Amino acid sequence: MTAAPLRVVIAPDSLKGSCSASTAARALAQGARAALGPGVQIHELPLADGGEGTLEVLAEAWGGEIVAVPTSDALDRPRVGRIALSADGSRAVVEAAEANGLPHVADEPLRALDADSAGVGALLRAALDAGARELLVCIGGSATSDGGAGMLRALGVRLLRADGAPIAGGARGLSELARIDLSGLLPAAREARWRIAVDVTNPLLGAQGAASVFGPQKGASPAEVAVIDAGLARFAELLAEAGETSPAATRSAAQHARTALTTLPGLGAAGGLALGPVALWGAELMPGAELVAAAVGLDAALREADLVLTGEGRLDAQSLAGKVVSRVLAGCASAGSERPPRVVVIAGSVALSAAECRAAGITAALSLAPGPATLSELQRDASALLAETAAHACALAFPAGPLGAGDPAREA
Amino acid sequence: MTAAPLRVVIAPDSLKGSCSASTAARALAQGARAALGPGVQIHELPLADGGEGTLEVLAEAWGGEIVAVPTSDALDRPRVGRIALSADGSRAVVEAAEANGLPHVADEPLRALDADSAGVGALLRAALDAGARELLVCIGGSATSDGGAGMLRALGVRLLRADGAPIAGGARGLSELARIDLSGLLPAAREARWRIAVDVTNPLLGAQGAASVFGPQKGASPAEVAVIDAGLARFAELLAEAGETSPAATRSAAQHARTALTTLPGLGAAGGLALGPVALWGAELMPGAELVAAAVGLDAALREADLVLTGEGRLDAQSLAGKVVSRVLAGCASAGSERPPRVVVIAGSVALSAAECRAAGITAALSLAPGPATLSELQRDASALLAETAAHACALAFPAGPLGAGDPAREA
Repeated sequence: MTAAPLRVVIAPDSLKGSCSASTAARALAQGARAALGPGVQIHELPLADGGEGTLEVLAEAWGGEIVAVPTSDALDRPRVGRIALSADGSRAVVEAAEANGLPHVADEPLRALDADSAGVGALLRAALDAGARELLVCIGGSATSDGGAGMLRALGVRLLRADGAPIAGGARGLSELARIDLSGLLPAAREARWRIAVDVTNPLLGAQGAASVFGPQKGASPAEVAVIDAGLARFAELLAEAGETSPAATRSAAQHARTALTTLPGLGAAGGLALGPVALWGAELMPGAELVAAAVGLDAALREADLVLTGEGRLDAQSLAGKVVSRVLAGCASAGSERPPRVVVIAGSVALSAAECRAAGITAALSLAPGPATLSELQRDASALLAETAAHACALAFPAGPLGAGDPAREA
Repeated sequence: MTAAPLRVVIAPDSLKGSCSASTAARALAQGARAALGPGVQIHELPLADGGEGTLEVLAEAWGGEIVAVPTSDALDRPRVGRIALSADGSRAVVEAAEANGLPHVADEPLRALDADSAGVGALLRAALDAGARELLVCIGGSATSDGGAGMLRALGVRLLRADGAPIAGGARGLSELARIDLSGLLPAAREARWRIAVDVTNPLLGAQGAASVFGPQKGASPAEVAVIDAGLARFAELLAEAGETSPAATRSAAQHARTALTTLPGLGAAGGLALGPVALWGAELMPGAELVAAAVGLDAALREADLVLTGEGRLDAQSLAGKVVSRVLAGCASAGSERPPRVVVIAGSVALSAAECRAAGITAALSLAPGPATLSELQRDASALLAETAAHACALAFPAGPLGAGDPAREA
């Protein structure tokens, strides 16, 4: 009989410090092809978790491009950020940290009350101006705690004091906030579909909230933490009211606004940056790996796979909690195939036991280390080592490849 | 359908500096059982290449024991060596270096002309006295260059000067050798079946011979190298004559004696230690890995295997040239099965490319390194890491095991 070709999906994260997701995917594909022969069907789907590499991965998946956009950092200093646009301009990825990221303000003492997210708004505005109506917004790694006040302002929302004057920038201004005027809001902003990737599950307020947990690393003193927490609470209350009366508010958004805005998991990410989009037009929060998986069509690819190769820098318990590998595993588990694919994780470092791997749905996890080696040696050679390890793994899984001797046809 | 149980043969070498072959086999079996479930048939066959670990491996395979034997080192100082005996005493392994090994005389300046192999004879005599009629003699790592003169003397052969007095010990005496008297030779010695494991393919004499190539590392000056080479030539000539007239000489031994004694590959091992047994009673020379494989019945086990796990400290080009791994591969290749087993090498260090592995018949080669690590870390944890790596490899090869999700039934 003539068998159907083997189908291999190659869906790695980047390996931080050594290679991007697409470089990793290319290396793994090279190894798979060497072991399985030219007849193998290989589908490269480099992934990301909403952090580093997300722009590149989606720009490539969409056949689009990365565009430089004039924006500002959290201290309102000009800088150039990047956004990814699909080929037709209808979809965009905005990585908030391209504007309000902590590293960009590392040269100054941190001022938690002043840090402002207006630059994120500038990136979004550029995406909307380019025609994007599907926004994938990745937040995290931010220096701001202003609940996205600056970002909303950049999109046309007016945040006013009781006397009608605009509030001050940053979290500082939230304590004087009295009224939210949506009349100037960019129509495209509320017409677009927003999905926001969050990297934490903290709520907006309280002991586990944005100010208490992340404020200190953004330079907030205990007193400032209290000021920020109170400001965010006030902002959430007024946004909830505005959301309910806003023509753009969906029923679910209004429900968020009324009952759950202050407890929604993930709304504590990036100093409450997602608060306005959630309250005003029902933006969806999701893990970054989920957002990327959805955007590149991971699940459909997994349904067809005989073998899935994924990878990351270090496979550990965190990998199973929301990172790329866990999303790949979830996709395989829900693929509903009668013959689920074998899933091989190739990592710089494997810190889960074989039993833990199997319990999580990982068929095998292999380190790319070929023997004693330092981290920097492995990082330097990561691409070649990924290819080699993938070749070994593929040959072992399907030894009937062109170089193989064995026949895998064994009834289970 | 009810499938036949999976059959896994586990046939590793030792991992020098970390675990013995049987410890390695036990660890690999543990991993295989964890991945493949209790129904798997596992056959543990720890191997060795005639060097370190050979005594232990064969004593265990035979259900026999290791026995301490009073002997002497290459400088004729008393020491206790070990030999392995099968349970019924009929078979013995003698590792020559237990007596004449270089490490035992490392405390003194090397004296190449004086180093004597009498201690090896004492070990052999103990084996023969215990009833052994099948001798597996491993040579290599020796400090002697006496062509086995001391060993033969210990077995009852008289080596005489022209004036009828015994020659001096060591290679020094060979230059005065005039006559070989076999009348006192222990009958058991020539009645036994001798197989001698050699670790090199050098001939006895000449530029590639025992004296020229290995003499210097045993302390021989250039002048002494010439003396030894001439002595060995003389010894070979007289042994050839003696072999032809000896009642014990087989036809093939006599043929060796007449035509090939001085060019036989491997006869240059251990300072010509095998010369007498080959010339006088047709001892067979073979690679150590071959000797051990034959003694434990490796090939029969491989014929039944679905999966073979082997391993060693470092997989490199040498592994494919006469070491344990190459013997396992040869056994798999010649097993003549329609469905040859997959062969997985698990090593501390993998220094062959995937393509080189496949060309050599290795389905996959995996390092036990789980990530960045030093050699000593890997050596310390080798046993646990072998088990983990074996579990991953087995799960990938046969994912239908009890913890696996996949179904490996794929027509090739």
